[in-house]
Amino acid sequence: MFITRIGQLLTMEGAALGLRSNVSLRVENGRVAEIIDGEVSRHGDAIDAGGQLVTPGLVDPHTHLIFAGSRADEFDRRARGQSYNEIAAAGGGILSTVRATRAASDEELIASTLARLDRFLRNGVVAVEAKSGYALSIEGELRLLRLLKRVAQQHVVKISPTLLAHVPPPDLPRQVFVDRFIAEAIPQAAQEKLAEAVDVYCDVGAFTLDETERILNAAKSLGLRLRVHAEQFTYTGAAELAAKLGAASVEHVEELSADGPALLARSQTGCNLLPGAALTLGLKWPNARALLDAGCLVALGTDCNPGSSLTESLPLMMSLACMQMKMSCEEAWRAATVNAARALGHDLGRVAVGASANLVIWRANDYREVIQHYGDSLVEAVIVDGQKMQF
Amino acid sequence: MFITRIGQLLTMEGAALGLRSNVSLRVENGRVAEIIDGEVSRHGDAIDAGGQLVTPGLVDPHTHLIFAGSRADEFDRRARGQSYNEIAAAGGGILSTVRATRAASDEELIASTLARLDRFLRNGVVAVEAKSGYALSIEGELRLLRLLKRVAQQHVVKISPTLLAHVPPPDLPRQVFVDRFIAEAIPQAAQEKLAEAVDVYCDVGAFTLDETERILNAAKSLGLRLRVHAEQFTYTGAAELAAKLGAASVEHVEELSADGPALLARSQTGCNLLPGAALTLGLKWPNARALLDAGCLVALGTDCNPGSSLTESLPLMMSLACMQMKMSCEEAWRAATVNAARALGHDLGRVAVGASANLVIWRANDYREVIQHYGDSLVEAVIVDGQKMQF
Repeated sequence: MFITRIGQLLTMEGAALGLRSNVSLRVENGRVAEIIDGEVSRHGDAIDAGGQLVTPGLVDPHTHLIFAGSRADEFDRRARGQSYNEIAAAGGGILSTVRATRAASDEELIASTLARLDRFLRNGVVAVEAKSGYALSIEGELRLLRLLKRVAQQHVVKISPTLLAHVPPPDLPRQVFVDRFIAEAIPQAAQEKLAEAVDVYCDVGAFTLDETERILNAAKSLGLRLRVHAEQFTYTGAAELAAKLGAASVEHVEELSADGPALLARSQTGCNLLPGAALTLGLKWPNARALLDAGCLVALGTDCNPGSSLTESLPLMMSLACMQMKMSCEEAWRAATVNAARALGHDLGRVAVGASANLVIWRANDYREVIQHYGDSLVEAVIVDGQKMQF
Repeated sequence: MFITRIGQLLTMEGAALGLRSNVSLRVENGRVAEIIDGEVSRHGDAIDAGGQLVTPGLVDPHTHLIFAGSRADEFDRRARGQSYNEIAAAGGGILSTVRATRAASDEELIASTLARLDRFLRNGVVAVEAKSGYALSIEGELRLLRLLKRVAQQHVVKISPTLLAHVPPPDLPRQVFVDRFIAEAIPQAAQEKLAEAVDVYCDVGAFTLDETERILNAAKSLGLRLRVHAEQFTYTGAAELAAKLGAASVEHVEELSADGPALLARSQTGCNLLPGAALTLGLKWPNARALLDAGCLVALGTDCNPGSSLTESLPLMMSLACMQMKMSCEEAWRAATVNAARALGHDLGRVAVGASANLVIWRANDYREVIQHYGDSLVEAVIVDGQKMQF
């Protein structure tokens, strides 16, 4: 199969965008077999890119993909002046989603998660990280991971599952929960290969730095990747801990310390920035410039979740990064492709001979147009492992 | 024709949302003929809303719909640290679009404008205001209005055309341009019925308050509606002028004076707030609360244009209003329906017996979900004058 008349191709090879003009691709067995200068003469199975932009499929390194229920009422109350923490303290927030998720049937959870993945795909996303976290019981978290496994079998978007220690449960002493999370949830998830990573939400109202370290050490000893929700609302030192333990990624990091960027750069810990949560909650934007200038590996995620960022539009996160966080278009493209893929430990997010053919054809002639135009996807077609998707 | 199983209907009748639950609509000759409690037994031509949300079609009161060229390079330069005014001073900005628009063929301009309207429709928008402004010659501005008239004949989205005095042209003394705008452009547009309104961009780098007043008085004397791009970058007093002249709307008003809201409320001048420009340029958000609390008629627009807000997503503007401008979901819905329609002087934006049947069926059960979910349209179907659109 060929993709011909590609006006602009981002390969993401090398340090910049690996930009190629006026090329075609030969795809075989789901992989890129050849990058050809110019057009190919018409074949029956050639996809005509019409001179437009082709890029790697986007990769979202941070989603809370599986949940039930709606928190639109809380959204409106926040718009009317209540704070996220006020709403959480009144029994809303995460615990409201926990009640709905616990009550939902497997079929409901699978159906709504599949619908979400459809929207991700329509936005050019071919792979997402997906966290558990809305059960807050050992068996419940494992259930969500098992459901994610079933979802992954039914959808072309690739899922990198993460076991998340989200917040202490309302119905179990936090010490008991942490102990059982370490003694039961992590080993079981590892044994059943339900999770590739463990993430801990370290913040006021979530887990302490000590609890975070205990959980991450347990995950590390079983060979799982480590992630930390660090410094979203308050500075806790979690980013330094993540760097020390060689975590694959830190998440949010809005409230990073002054020496955080250098530490994270040295440890090559990916920084998953989530502008959607800052936008939704009216918080300050992650300091992308400090991280990039320090040499950190910066990725962008939607943070797709029912409370603080209900979106599947990774292109919009790229727009926010350039509009509000002073990231260049080049930095935003790397953040949503190769850098995100690296945080997930897989080989997506680039176009190279031998690499899997996960591609987006955009209704645009230039990679910057996709970011400048916002709020409505310019995706024309998505190719997953060499197959053109219909939607 | 019937629309049945509407779980939640926003009629926008009365001061709030005019919310009705579990109703059906009978539509005849493109108009709502009856609002029926409960379901209707199945007819061959009934549209099943499946228990979801139905609202009036959205109305965008402020777009720069017709233009050619791309300013994605400038977008990237701004992301890398250059300011909007620096870029404009270097020959970029509006004048870059003017060069591309002057050079574009009628066919190119019509095709790109139609494509933009397709995206508006997909976002639930059934009517837009559309300004000229990227020709900066008398004949060129009239050409853009004539092309908008041709576009309107080819698309179901309704267009309210506005003759815009955008910025002084680079190739004509400003005094000559203003004189000819008054003596030729406005009378010709009125005579050919090419424009329903005249808008002046009053700001540093655009027109002075005196020039603005002269142009608006000329438009008023010919019975055209008045609009003013007021107080976007600097405070000029344009909003007070608009109130004094009984303008239909002021646009932007980020830098309003302390007594501006009360004046605008008294004159019943619509306030078209454009959060997309604030987002794109990193400027401060319009002070919606001051305007709403003073009793102003607040509407939301995309400001769709090639430089400072390249989007057709009015739902995203509603999200930004609630996330960042402390507007409630109810206020955002009114701003994007009845209030916007009122600024345009037509009867859209509501669901009532006898009113035209312009409706959106949303993939949501509640009006707040459409705003909380952002970056990807939840539109399931759009009904224009009783006809269901395909896309």
